[in-house]
Amino acid sequence: MEPTPRSQVRRQRDRGDYRRETIDAILDEGFVCHIACAAHGTVWMIPTTYGRAGDRVYIHGAAANHVLEAARAGAELTMTVTLVDGLVLARSTFHHSVNYRSVTLFGTVTDITDPVEKEAALACIVDHILPGRTGEARPPSPVELTRTRVVSLEIAEASAKVRTGGPVDDEEDLALPVWAGVLPLGQSAGAAQPDLDHPPSVGPPPSLRQPTRWGGGGDRTAG
Amino acid sequence: MEPTPRSQVRRQRDRGDYRRETIDAILDEGFVCHIACAAHGTVWMIPTTYGRAGDRVYIHGAAANHVLEAARAGAELTMTVTLVDGLVLARSTFHHSVNYRSVTLFGTVTDITDPVEKEAALACIVDHILPGRTGEARPPSPVELTRTRVVSLEIAEASAKVRTGGPVDDEEDLALPVWAGVLPLGQSAGAAQPDLDHPPSVGPPPSLRQPTRWGGGGDRTAG
Repeated sequence: MEPTPRSQVRRQRDRGDYRRETIDAILDEGFVCHIACAAHGTVWMIPTTYGRAGDRVYIHGAAANHVLEAARAGAELTMTVTLVDGLVLARSTFHHSVNYRSVTLFGTVTDITDPVEKEAALACIVDHILPGRTGEARPPSPVELTRTRVVSLEIAEASAKVRTGGPVDDEEDLALPVWAGVLPLGQSAGAAQPDLDHPPSVGPPPSLRQPTRWGGGGDRTAG
Repeated sequence: MEPTPRSQVRRQRDRGDYRRETIDAILDEGFVCHIACAAHGTVWMIPTTYGRAGDRVYIHGAAANHVLEAARAGAELTMTVTLVDGLVLARSTFHHSVNYRSVTLFGTVTDITDPVEKEAALACIVDHILPGRTGEARPPSPVELTRTRVVSLEIAEASAKVRTGGPVDDEEDLALPVWAGVLPLGQSAGAAQPDLDHPPSVGPPPSLRQPTRWGGGGDRTAG
């Protein structure tokens, strides 16, 4: 998509990427975003989960406070998803960096009030985090749907910013006796822990036995 | 510390925690924050690294754009650090959640211009990410210091929000044949990868051979 004055990456422009495929891939790999709104003279920010379906990102309101209230009242929302891929250790302190992929979206949200649409949006969020999970759990009741606020944000004004690769040292530093390279970082899952207060009557579900974004291997139910 | 009207956690107040020890522990375990400012009618947000020393958080400007400019010009800064600890899988879709620890700070920043203070602040940021690293790398030159913007934010108006533990299902759902529990998540490090373009003349440094926050084990240099 075309960058706008505010989605245009200003610092380190070569790291800016406005292709939907790049933006969607980052949105699909992450599941926690930070959303922020200005209201009552303050910028409010919270972390929350989200889901993506096509051109829209869905955010629900169970954990939201001022941010979602302001967004629903028409305030512009800013949303950022950041994936941290590694520490970049250079020969000079100055050139130390972090490998990361981030996406920032700007826009006003659409409040979702229709129960059918709301249930689909909630399923999108839960299945975005753990694919297939909504097919395993009890669906929301009409009362639960009423108690949940869901909004959507169109992916219309967006940019990705990506840093990859090793350190970029100054030529005159290359011979210094300083180790330089990358320490890869990523999110990883441990073994699933069943509810101890009320042990489930069934074994671990398919959603936990498939490969997840937190490791290629599949079965997260051992241990 | 005392919550203020804006640092007071509104939703799920039982998750709010205003103790400095809780706030500092979260700030010290994380190393990527999101900072946001309002300027020119938009809320700008970026991910960036930070360090903490006592009552102050330091942020540097190499990767910052509108946010740091606005903050340096006097705009209020909002900063959030979020650590994701696990997925909470409940028997109902409605009660799905995420275990996390987050801190939000509000305030105006102090621009750091004194070269000595600036170098100490940059060292704080780098050593916050990887303790001892500044003792291994070439220190910043006077020109590099001039090219870097560093600000500090006092930990004065702050709150932590923490969710721990298993799913909280409705009583009538406990007997459902649905697995419920927690999938633990955390950040983990892989084996350090030396700069391939310019192989370092020395082996992996002590900073990579100590236990890190990404795993208890110590040596990150194998492989």
